[in-house]
Amino acid sequence: MAGASAAIWIPQPVKGYRAAEVLSGGPAGAEVDDPYAAKPGISKWDLDTPALCLDLDKFEKNIATMQAALKKLGTPSRPHAKTHKCAAIAKRQMATGSIGICAAKLGEADAFLNAGIGQVLMTTSNPSPRKVRHAMQLRKKHPGFIQAVDEEQNARDLSAAAKEAGVVADVVIDVAVGTRSGIPAGEGALALAKLIDTLPNLKLRGMLSYDGGVQHVKGFEARKARALKTIEANAETFAAMKKAGLNTEIFSGGGTGTYNIMHLVPGVTDVQVGSYIFMDMQYIPIGSEDGSEVYKEFEPSLTVTTTVMNNRFPGVIATDAGTKALTLNKPNPGVIGEPGMDYTAGSDEFGTIKFEKASKDYKIGDKLDVIVPHCDPVVNLYDQIYGIRGDKVEVIWPITARGKSQ
Amino acid sequence: MAGASAAIWIPQPVKGYRAAEVLSGGPAGAEVDDPYAAKPGISKWDLDTPALCLDLDKFEKNIATMQAALKKLGTPSRPHAKTHKCAAIAKRQMATGSIGICAAKLGEADAFLNAGIGQVLMTTSNPSPRKVRHAMQLRKKHPGFIQAVDEEQNARDLSAAAKEAGVVADVVIDVAVGTRSGIPAGEGALALAKLIDTLPNLKLRGMLSYDGGVQHVKGFEARKARALKTIEANAETFAAMKKAGLNTEIFSGGGTGTYNIMHLVPGVTDVQVGSYIFMDMQYIPIGSEDGSEVYKEFEPSLTVTTTVMNNRFPGVIATDAGTKALTLNKPNPGVIGEPGMDYTAGSDEFGTIKFEKASKDYKIGDKLDVIVPHCDPVVNLYDQIYGIRGDKVEVIWPITARGKSQ
Repeated sequence: MAGASAAIWIPQPVKGYRAAEVLSGGPAGAEVDDPYAAKPGISKWDLDTPALCLDLDKFEKNIATMQAALKKLGTPSRPHAKTHKCAAIAKRQMATGSIGICAAKLGEADAFLNAGIGQVLMTTSNPSPRKVRHAMQLRKKHPGFIQAVDEEQNARDLSAAAKEAGVVADVVIDVAVGTRSGIPAGEGALALAKLIDTLPNLKLRGMLSYDGGVQHVKGFEARKARALKTIEANAETFAAMKKAGLNTEIFSGGGTGTYNIMHLVPGVTDVQVGSYIFMDMQYIPIGSEDGSEVYKEFEPSLTVTTTVMNNRFPGVIATDAGTKALTLNKPNPGVIGEPGMDYTAGSDEFGTIKFEKASKDYKIGDKLDVIVPHCDPVVNLYDQIYGIRGDKVEVIWPITARGKSQ
Repeated sequence: MAGASAAIWIPQPVKGYRAAEVLSGGPAGAEVDDPYAAKPGISKWDLDTPALCLDLDKFEKNIATMQAALKKLGTPSRPHAKTHKCAAIAKRQMATGSIGICAAKLGEADAFLNAGIGQVLMTTSNPSPRKVRHAMQLRKKHPGFIQAVDEEQNARDLSAAAKEAGVVADVVIDVAVGTRSGIPAGEGALALAKLIDTLPNLKLRGMLSYDGGVQHVKGFEARKARALKTIEANAETFAAMKKAGLNTEIFSGGGTGTYNIMHLVPGVTDVQVGSYIFMDMQYIPIGSEDGSEVYKEFEPSLTVTTTVMNNRFPGVIATDAGTKALTLNKPNPGVIGEPGMDYTAGSDEFGTIKFEKASKDYKIGDKLDVIVPHCDPVVNLYDQIYGIRGDKVEVIWPITARGKSQ
């Protein structure tokens, strides 16, 4: 601690690299294998903060776990890309056994199709004529695009737009659970499927049915009971479609909370799992099939690193990651290694941590790593995600569809 | 309603233009006066949704109202640009009497300085050596850049980085209200100011002191009483700085809730108002100086237009604007013209409206316009803001510092 250097306080390791500084680009003039590779040797703790970080070992393990489980259960994954909005991640899902991806918004579907993901199922209907037309233009360019529809007039509009685009477009009916989107199960849904079957420029591929509400039900048995109950009428509609001789090659549904339940529903072909790659504070407490209270099949791989801004007051720390970096979702962000800390992201620009006990004395400039409250809307706040191996930055992936909420 | 067209349901007016389609760009090869001008004649209701819209008449009136009021009070505005993150808006503030803008994050300050806004006060200290160095590089390029500092070592680091950059850098001390950021008022703050005065590469310009908590206190008199009380110690510190012969040309503070209170604090030179240009559901109920319960000096100019996705169930409407389009802030988004509607943006991709009474029968494809819950984090979700005159799109401004939370 002696000498001139002691006069200048240099926190270690807080170099604070920004994304452009971390990207490799390779040696001048070189062909770069991976345009998203990082310069070698840069520590996660040297990134400018708040930084969205992905633990690649955990991420890859999560993908492998899901692919192996679904292979055994006979229901492959069609992961929902609204979670990650990242083409590089979608490519890794496709390369390991997923049969396609899902998109929630047309702008998202467009971004993924243009980024080279061929198989995209748009899980929401398009409520405007212009979106209908845009969807059919996408279908013309990308034969692997499938569009959900939940209303008869919308089906007619799609068929007209498909005709205009010169295609016979693939569609599935979206059958509702709850009151958010989709046509209710039963006669109306069957009639919609039959109508589509008669429309000249649409090809019925089957149905989808997603129950968002059941995904976070705590306790596996409670979740299973509810999931099997809420989908009952929809499964009957699916059976009726089959009986009517309609095409039923797709019955897509489920999510990270029900990936190991949906195979019990007669006819289900694939699951739209999303959060399993990242996990978050909302999924951790839902519990596993073996009765454990923690959902342990998948490990939290997605974190935001943040820097301590203020440590002046006992029991309180201010950080640089607030609402604009972590959202207001609950439960609160989880500070890794500090179970005694309660992190609130209620301020736009600042995080506030309250604690009675901490593992060390935090100084201004120190870094903390927090598990995000709810992965989807947090990812949507960032332009890139840093892929970390050990504690070194390996890749910087653009969030391809960031902000595409249209 | 007769004829073939009745068979195809064409909702009016829902053309669904995307931003790139609306931008004028002018005739081929032409010099364009305003690169952000829209093609003429496009209705706000024809935009793809969710769309972030700014009523330009109200926006301009809000700016004029604030500039006139502050001129009278003798405390010009140094608007906080964390609210709008938009260089086009900052330019309009500067052109109408603002003496500079504020930035909350260094990435934000960088974006505004590079967009040609010369006078930027960075209101937060920089907690890492790399940010300190980056700040001083900005100062070298942009003499109008002023950096806040709230800690002695940070001041020494800044001076060292300023020396390295070959500049004498302008700084203000940030004096705390509460425990979030800033040095507490009193001896410590005075000592920090004195230290800065002795550091070879820093020039002390004064102090800033922002009370975020008081801005939304309901009732003008209650707000005034609290604002004047919380700043008392800070004003004493400011007086002590003056008495000590330090440079006190800046005493910046206040916000939209206290713009007409801060001139009562001895020494205050300017106010850091932000939300007044937009307003939001958080500011509307704070009340005006004349005792009215609604904050009526400024009109809500910022809305998100959204499209009805589902109207199947009585008393419930689903829309296409959820958390990713409106955030989870409270109070809930306010549906314009529908006081009986309660809008929840709790789903990532969907809004849910519950109502007993509505002014009309809403159909799929119909549009609604909602006042945002809290303007700052909503703006941060979008790449552009549509400037609307009457109901026509006039300009499409990029959100220059969108996502710059570092």
